[in-house]
Amino acid sequence: MKPDYVKPLDRRHGRVELSQGAGGRAMMQLIGEVFARALGNEYLNQGDDGARLPAPGGRIVIATDAHVVSPLFFPGGDIGCLAVHGTLNDVAVMGATPLYLAASFILEEGFPLADLIRIVDSMATAAREAGVPVVTGDTKVVEAGKADGVFITTTGVGSLREDVDLSGAHARPGDGVLLSGPIGDHGMAIMSLREGLAFDAPIVSDTAALHGLVKTLLDAVPTIRCLRDPTRGGLASTLNEISRQSGVGMVIEEAAIPVRPAVAAACELLGLDPLNVACEGRLVVICPPEQEAAALAALSAHPLGREAALVGRVQADPACFVQMRTRFGGRRHVDWLSGEQLPRIC
Amino acid sequence: MKPDYVKPLDRRHGRVELSQGAGGRAMMQLIGEVFARALGNEYLNQGDDGARLPAPGGRIVIATDAHVVSPLFFPGGDIGCLAVHGTLNDVAVMGATPLYLAASFILEEGFPLADLIRIVDSMATAAREAGVPVVTGDTKVVEAGKADGVFITTTGVGSLREDVDLSGAHARPGDGVLLSGPIGDHGMAIMSLREGLAFDAPIVSDTAALHGLVKTLLDAVPTIRCLRDPTRGGLASTLNEISRQSGVGMVIEEAAIPVRPAVAAACELLGLDPLNVACEGRLVVICPPEQEAAALAALSAHPLGREAALVGRVQADPACFVQMRTRFGGRRHVDWLSGEQLPRIC
Repeated sequence: MKPDYVKPLDRRHGRVELSQGAGGRAMMQLIGEVFARALGNEYLNQGDDGARLPAPGGRIVIATDAHVVSPLFFPGGDIGCLAVHGTLNDVAVMGATPLYLAASFILEEGFPLADLIRIVDSMATAAREAGVPVVTGDTKVVEAGKADGVFITTTGVGSLREDVDLSGAHARPGDGVLLSGPIGDHGMAIMSLREGLAFDAPIVSDTAALHGLVKTLLDAVPTIRCLRDPTRGGLASTLNEISRQSGVGMVIEEAAIPVRPAVAAACELLGLDPLNVACEGRLVVICPPEQEAAALAALSAHPLGREAALVGRVQADPACFVQMRTRFGGRRHVDWLSGEQLPRIC
Repeated sequence: MKPDYVKPLDRRHGRVELSQGAGGRAMMQLIGEVFARALGNEYLNQGDDGARLPAPGGRIVIATDAHVVSPLFFPGGDIGCLAVHGTLNDVAVMGATPLYLAASFILEEGFPLADLIRIVDSMATAAREAGVPVVTGDTKVVEAGKADGVFITTTGVGSLREDVDLSGAHARPGDGVLLSGPIGDHGMAIMSLREGLAFDAPIVSDTAALHGLVKTLLDAVPTIRCLRDPTRGGLASTLNEISRQSGVGMVIEEAAIPVRPAVAAACELLGLDPLNVACEGRLVVICPPEQEAAALAALSAHPLGREAALVGRVQADPACFVQMRTRFGGRRHVDWLSGEQLPRIC
């Protein structure tokens, strides 16, 4: 479908216009030249109000995530690839193989087209690398001042493996708590940029699609109890969520939790606790004790899990407390994130 | 999952806070007391990063839509029910039975909680009436001034009927163009409110879930070529889209197109063409000529199709023009909407 355009898009100096969200000719042009051009595939190209897709087979998983990260571009990524990774990871940690993505854009009038194209291209690259097509989408434009550049909601649909049964409610006393790599990289990449912190080498977001790592892990250890990606609220909130859902407590070891020196330094400077800082490419794994070694080996063998570590253990605790044994041998309560210290991190 | 709240939500006078999007305790509270309370069902209540769902069986359809309508509340509905109807309709016009909805909210800091609750409750009512649960969701909060109250993206997943094959590319010369009811009600309900037009009786949005009407129609006439809901860009853009996709032209009859007198009057006042004004509860049906009578009868027998009419006919035209025979016997070209005359209508 190729309407006769009034004028060609200025891909370099143009800006998003309200008419590009109004359902007519200008919208068809934006969709064709920016979105379909980068993201096109047999499903998206159907050009109907939704996408017709082959049967996924078995139970399905649906996850949705709005992405409002600020700034839109950051070391290691941008809102485009983040919107792909974030939702794929939500599907993957359910034990599902992501099959399809839907993408909905809210654009602010006046947003530079060149930036939009960069974001959509990054999204296309991330989707291609992940092997998951964007099959349908939507674009709305709001007046200047009524949004903040670009917001992207992605929804993922996946096919659930029959041999696994993962849930935040499945943690049992004695289970190991594993982490696939250092925490806080994504959050501190964003915060350092916002706060203008300068380091010799910038902190780089860990944003990545985890479904390959999850597959490697579940192929090796299908009896995993629970998987999560510790995004907003960080490791602290993720562990508290699982503890609540399962009605158990946990003890984690500060010395065992990998944190990069630059992330630790930036947290120190900004008065943040790395336990509260978002990751976008890390996995929390709750695993029966007899499978810990196998799970750790599987994680470590994958490029995204090289720094995997056993960081704690589930224990019986009707109060569902998460505690941390500190480097100095003390114990402290690890609470949910309670303030608004890290808005718009993803 | 019920974290110990710091303070109870003030459902009457409270406002959305940044902390309610930060992944911690305050977010769990908002999700529990506002979203899960209204929308809760066995899937949403799983409380994991996504929803695990039974196999849909057969091919699936996915559709996604961002909703940025302004104002948020209007005669006949609000952004909450609109976000349910809009996406269900996109799934339905593909010939699919909607099964599941995902909902993602972008909230502006300071937005009144009472309004949010009203919106979520309206969403819950619309989902319940449609028989389609909201199975998973997401909430983000951005700083005051960085959004406009509430934006909602919904994504629908449906199961595709095996006996139908609908596409905008299937229209053939000779086919009838049917409309399920009057056009422009939704768009003019919004525009009248924005422009402060006063009528004896306000124009009421036609927002409605169409999957029941679609089922009735397809049960009676499975050989329908194409269904669309003429939202943004109105009937004019919808017919132009289908014409382009199918490589055909169309002639519609002005006298046959139902437009309510108040809608016509408001359009006149604001210099708008009803053909460009969005509907949110109307169906465009392209149908083989020998099935027109049966299709019209099926539509008319349903409460949402009582005012259905045959409004035009597909014809061979390599230029893919949509033309209208006017009340006075002339002909005019019906073009795509080309300006930004109707931003944020849905």
